[in-house]
Amino acid sequence: MQIVRWGIVGTGGIAHRFAEAAKNVEGVSLEAVASRNDGTARQFADEFGIPHPFGSYEDMARFDGIDAAYIATPHALHAPNGMLMMNHGKAVLSEKPITVNMLQLDEMIACAQKNKVFLMEAMWARLTPGTIKLLEIVKSGAIGEVKGIQAAFCYDMSDEPDHHAFNPLYGGGSLLDVGCYCLSFASWNMDSPVADIVAEAELGPTGVDVHCCVLIKYASGAIASLTSAMLLEKPGDGYVFGDKGYIKTKDRFYAPQEFTVHVRDSKPQTYRCPFLGNGFEEQIIESSRCIREGKLESDIVPHSQSRFIMAQMDAIRRQIGVRYPLDPA
Amino acid sequence: MQIVRWGIVGTGGIAHRFAEAAKNVEGVSLEAVASRNDGTARQFADEFGIPHPFGSYEDMARFDGIDAAYIATPHALHAPNGMLMMNHGKAVLSEKPITVNMLQLDEMIACAQKNKVFLMEAMWARLTPGTIKLLEIVKSGAIGEVKGIQAAFCYDMSDEPDHHAFNPLYGGGSLLDVGCYCLSFASWNMDSPVADIVAEAELGPTGVDVHCCVLIKYASGAIASLTSAMLLEKPGDGYVFGDKGYIKTKDRFYAPQEFTVHVRDSKPQTYRCPFLGNGFEEQIIESSRCIREGKLESDIVPHSQSRFIMAQMDAIRRQIGVRYPLDPA
Repeated sequence: MQIVRWGIVGTGGIAHRFAEAAKNVEGVSLEAVASRNDGTARQFADEFGIPHPFGSYEDMARFDGIDAAYIATPHALHAPNGMLMMNHGKAVLSEKPITVNMLQLDEMIACAQKNKVFLMEAMWARLTPGTIKLLEIVKSGAIGEVKGIQAAFCYDMSDEPDHHAFNPLYGGGSLLDVGCYCLSFASWNMDSPVADIVAEAELGPTGVDVHCCVLIKYASGAIASLTSAMLLEKPGDGYVFGDKGYIKTKDRFYAPQEFTVHVRDSKPQTYRCPFLGNGFEEQIIESSRCIREGKLESDIVPHSQSRFIMAQMDAIRRQIGVRYPLDPA
Repeated sequence: MQIVRWGIVGTGGIAHRFAEAAKNVEGVSLEAVASRNDGTARQFADEFGIPHPFGSYEDMARFDGIDAAYIATPHALHAPNGMLMMNHGKAVLSEKPITVNMLQLDEMIACAQKNKVFLMEAMWARLTPGTIKLLEIVKSGAIGEVKGIQAAFCYDMSDEPDHHAFNPLYGGGSLLDVGCYCLSFASWNMDSPVADIVAEAELGPTGVDVHCCVLIKYASGAIASLTSAMLLEKPGDGYVFGDKGYIKTKDRFYAPQEFTVHVRDSKPQTYRCPFLGNGFEEQIIESSRCIREGKLESDIVPHSQSRFIMAQMDAIRRQIGVRYPLDPA
């Protein structure tokens, strides 16, 4: 199997999770890591036995010892960091949300097409065994026609008011940070275009949404009710409601390791679908396979899926009045 | 204690529940029942040992052996039936929703004021021990400032397509039938005016909402996410989210007999608050007490509360396009 050689841009928590997972995946090697800080890159490289630390993103982009880059910087930097890598012929797996708006996303997709390189949003959750099994059951019609989705992803960062997740310059706010999981979960379960979206949000002192509730009406008539928050804890279970029954996930709806199918007049059935490792292995396997096969996008997490979700996030932000400096005039 | 003598208008399921509860309440007697059908009234009277069955609402209105009438007819009839009783000097306890729109409600309140009689919406859930305890805990600040409400009341009537709950003439649809519980629950937990409401709904073949999702933004910044449906089963638990923790009810959020308080860094605490009987006793006690004391409305379920919820239902129906023949032009 052709080894796909990866470099990581960024050294935060999500970069750690990627590096841990990469160690477990056959046919990939972790060759490089880049940080704006040389010491940080070296420290990360030491921790994971990565041979080539770089104190500059540009240096890693020029390095010909990698085939692909995983972008693990704050949201607003995914596009510039990703395009830097693609302009040097590297495939890109970019953390979610892939960019902060559609303008950036279309620039990024154009950049991938121009350079004929693979580009995928790191929507790892879509590729986990639990999600795949859940979608298989929904598509089988076991719960009937899908009529509703309910999901909430809420966490409490009140003790970190200076975190970049609150900063409009970095594409902060609960919608982009975790609401994207809710929107994605809804879209995976729906075979219907969006007919209408309405939203209500509470904005915090920095002007980003600290609590955002969204209703999506699909052309089929189904309705998704989605919530994200960053100063509020809520249980993370999600539901898919059909006209014959429903599925309830245990905890993380977007990457459930356990869920229960309730079909009317039947005994509820629980499925357990553990991750291979920490949940990131599957996306490394999928993106590495695509890169190996010379594909420019994944069939499971294609560019069109990223655009579908980004269009919704742009529309929601216009409604709730969250505007980033990077948004078009 | 002065006995409050009750008559019941209507003989359906909810009338049965009222009659059962009334038997358990001290200081009240069930003296009459009225139906448009003489046989039905007699049968109901026999079942509950009610001395005066009437085959006409008018006859019961003129009967001077009752002080108060409980209106248990379909939604659209609450106003005409209630006003008939009030115009004959009877106090009125009207099933929820008290009317189908604000026009009817204001006529009904004016009628009560003109006749100087007691009028209360039968929002029994507000008076149950579980709701009272839950609100006491919320108002104590135990979960911090209320930032969110989540509640769903959904049931499946797909096997009764001819039920009056689907009929626009009777004020059908899930919002009025059970969404009113969601709106009420949210309002009880909020000390803040409504700043904005948005909604999405699926309308069925008769033009009423079979699934309705509502987001209410309060002036405080809090957001309620509420769902009602009548062709869809969903678990009926509800949540009150504060910035220090949350409360989750077990099953029926609007009249919880069990709920758990989750405060950050504390062990969850579960409260069990059984009904006195079938859940209707408390509203009979409250309305009878008010009537005995010569009050024209209840302090706990005042006219203003009914108007607060009706204004929201009118606004939601305008957004989702559900219009009743009884609505003003």
